[in-house]
Amino acid sequence: MLRIITQQTEAQTELKRIGGRTFDDDMRPKEELVREIITNVKTQGDTALLAYTEKFDQQVLPLEKLKVSGSELDAAYQQISQDLLHAIQLACQKIEAFHRQRIPKSWVQFEDDEVVLGKRYTPVDRAGLYVPGGRAAYPSTVLMNAIPAKVAKVPKIVMVTPPGEDLKINPAVLVAAQEVGIEEIYRIGGAQAIAALAYGTETIPKVDVITGPGNIYVTLAKKMVYGKVGIDSLAGPSEVLIIADHQANPVYVAADLLAQAEHDPMAAAILLTTDATLAYKVQQEVSRQLENHPRKILTEKAIAHYGLIVVVDSLETAAELSNLFAPEHLELEVSEPWDLLEHIRHAGAIFLGNSTPEAVGDYLAGPNHTLPTSGAARYASALGVETFMKHSSLIQYSPVALKKMSSTIQILAQAEGLPSHADSVRLRTD
Amino acid sequence: MLRIITQQTEAQTELKRIGGRTFDDDMRPKEELVREIITNVKTQGDTALLAYTEKFDQQVLPLEKLKVSGSELDAAYQQISQDLLHAIQLACQKIEAFHRQRIPKSWVQFEDDEVVLGKRYTPVDRAGLYVPGGRAAYPSTVLMNAIPAKVAKVPKIVMVTPPGEDLKINPAVLVAAQEVGIEEIYRIGGAQAIAALAYGTETIPKVDVITGPGNIYVTLAKKMVYGKVGIDSLAGPSEVLIIADHQANPVYVAADLLAQAEHDPMAAAILLTTDATLAYKVQQEVSRQLENHPRKILTEKAIAHYGLIVVVDSLETAAELSNLFAPEHLELEVSEPWDLLEHIRHAGAIFLGNSTPEAVGDYLAGPNHTLPTSGAARYASALGVETFMKHSSLIQYSPVALKKMSSTIQILAQAEGLPSHADSVRLRTD
Repeated sequence: MLRIITQQTEAQTELKRIGGRTFDDDMRPKEELVREIITNVKTQGDTALLAYTEKFDQQVLPLEKLKVSGSELDAAYQQISQDLLHAIQLACQKIEAFHRQRIPKSWVQFEDDEVVLGKRYTPVDRAGLYVPGGRAAYPSTVLMNAIPAKVAKVPKIVMVTPPGEDLKINPAVLVAAQEVGIEEIYRIGGAQAIAALAYGTETIPKVDVITGPGNIYVTLAKKMVYGKVGIDSLAGPSEVLIIADHQANPVYVAADLLAQAEHDPMAAAILLTTDATLAYKVQQEVSRQLENHPRKILTEKAIAHYGLIVVVDSLETAAELSNLFAPEHLELEVSEPWDLLEHIRHAGAIFLGNSTPEAVGDYLAGPNHTLPTSGAARYASALGVETFMKHSSLIQYSPVALKKMSSTIQILAQAEGLPSHADSVRLRTD
Repeated sequence: MLRIITQQTEAQTELKRIGGRTFDDDMRPKEELVREIITNVKTQGDTALLAYTEKFDQQVLPLEKLKVSGSELDAAYQQISQDLLHAIQLACQKIEAFHRQRIPKSWVQFEDDEVVLGKRYTPVDRAGLYVPGGRAAYPSTVLMNAIPAKVAKVPKIVMVTPPGEDLKINPAVLVAAQEVGIEEIYRIGGAQAIAALAYGTETIPKVDVITGPGNIYVTLAKKMVYGKVGIDSLAGPSEVLIIADHQANPVYVAADLLAQAEHDPMAAAILLTTDATLAYKVQQEVSRQLENHPRKILTEKAIAHYGLIVVVDSLETAAELSNLFAPEHLELEVSEPWDLLEHIRHAGAIFLGNSTPEAVGDYLAGPNHTLPTSGAARYASALGVETFMKHSSLIQYSPVALKKMSSTIQILAQAEGLPSHADSVRLRTD
């Protein structure tokens, strides 16, 4: 049963516990394994990839099957319904339209004395997208990672995803990839896939940025190769925090909480409400909706460990608790959501009003569903076109401009004990 | 002597070697030490900070001296020249003016059926700036890290820097901090300072983002706490790559190469030129300028190990080699730098023409001097206002809009095996 608490201090403690659920006390054994995997992929290339696939995915993967073939890609279209194809296509359009807004653009500006300053934005050369397999093989993951890369005009995008039984890959995932224009897909998952993308193998090209969610091994591998390549973020288990007042519908709120909990036994589903009656009704409704839930066991587990209802004295208190938690997803099921928004400082995505369940954003509203988890919304943002771009600062000084700044630069360089810095200006201007 | 090579393949090998100079074969012993430091600071707080300061900085630090006092801050102004103060103030103005350009702004847009989409930008609550001590205690580091945080309107900014002999801190560093408006400064450095900022101690507040350069222990600590807090980047040793044609001045080019080499024995200074005569002259000139160089030993070391001149057949070849290296700093000392720019894909900052030595950008042109190193310019950018901001996606659907998308969302949710995702929409629209 979803727990209800009313004490502020208890609420803070509980939110802190839930927010910190990602991290084991000691990650070292897992880190050691991941380090070993990376080293072996780096030195043995494809051979290591095939061996790890047999070991971890229990699949014998012949080298010629590492890359997904054109005929397999074609066949995927026959394996999904027309309805699903059209749904993927509509989602694709809407996500792309949103990501085309406010793409970073290069600029230069001219200052006095013929000084030119600016920023020049360019895409990365190569991006690698990780798409989980098994229960969590989602076509929406493909769209949300690949579309920003496409909009950024990344010349080469490759995808990796672990093989399931008989080396199969979810056909909806393959269709989603093709709808976005990705045809270079490798049948490899886990830390070994991340290592392959970071260092390259005989078959898999080395990339510049790796994005996409994964299990703890994938996440540790991403952290380990960060610096060698760019990464989007370190994804933890998913979470929703809902702020609701008396006018919220307990049936909707309960469904929204369960829509988060059903992802993973580690998922978190939190309700902060000013209305004790609503709290009670949501509690009942969650139990009711769980009764015949197809993913009942794992969902119940998430609700039991990381589910929580807090009755608060005001919406401002709710906002403060939410800021403390910095949720990945925040739903404002209150009568004046835009007023409450003013009190929110940290959240990955904010869903306003009673007709905006998170699922709208998960699939097709447009904004990215790859969002900062585990409190990372305090400092990080959704994956976006920027994830696949970078900029170079541009500086051009004229002889006149340099002369004017010459003595100031020399004073600073001398103060820092860097004589050649000073010389590089002095020799040009004296 | 600065080595000259002419073979393309040798050039590629050498650039790869130089680009990879950051990483030891086995970082594990250093990582283990850093992990231990972080754990101890996490559990013992200030006590651990004082103990590590005695151990690594050889300074007995009383707890009441951990925070730099107001009188010490005041006194710093008396310890620097008026010229230096004015130089810091001018640099401050020019850096701030540049960083005020194109600050990310929140936006919403209204679509059909009363759908609202947007992005809301907010600053992080707290930023922590690391400023190295000793030979590398630079006031410019303070300006380049603190000004973007100020422009982003971060409510709380704290600085950490290791104590020198007699617990002293470089007065120019203290003045630069005050000129930007930072008065909360802690006398602590190394991995222990990063741990304190990430986890907080009795004295030092926990922050959300940590920026600033440091030695290998600081960098490893930043990588380790990344995910718990945001970081700017993993800074490696500095580097410049210069592309020059026949009209470049060998005296200037040599000074620019040395201005990089004088930073650190690990710094890299590379010239790619179409003109063999220039190559020879620069080689001579580097030796000449090194003769009475105050930092001769370390600068010679950098030149010997990570200095290189490559004579290339064309500027396009030079651009390709440069893209391979993805330099932190790129100088285009050629007659048509804006034409050559079109061929450049990856560089942290680009200095165009013969009158734009890197030192201009290091100190006061405006763009940030904290730039991606070790090839990270392939995927990363300069530190900026964005480093201290993040955005929340905003989504509001009306009942009508949700109804229109209802079946599409349900199809996608069912395909992904997430029934409560479908329910959260169905219950609202059926």
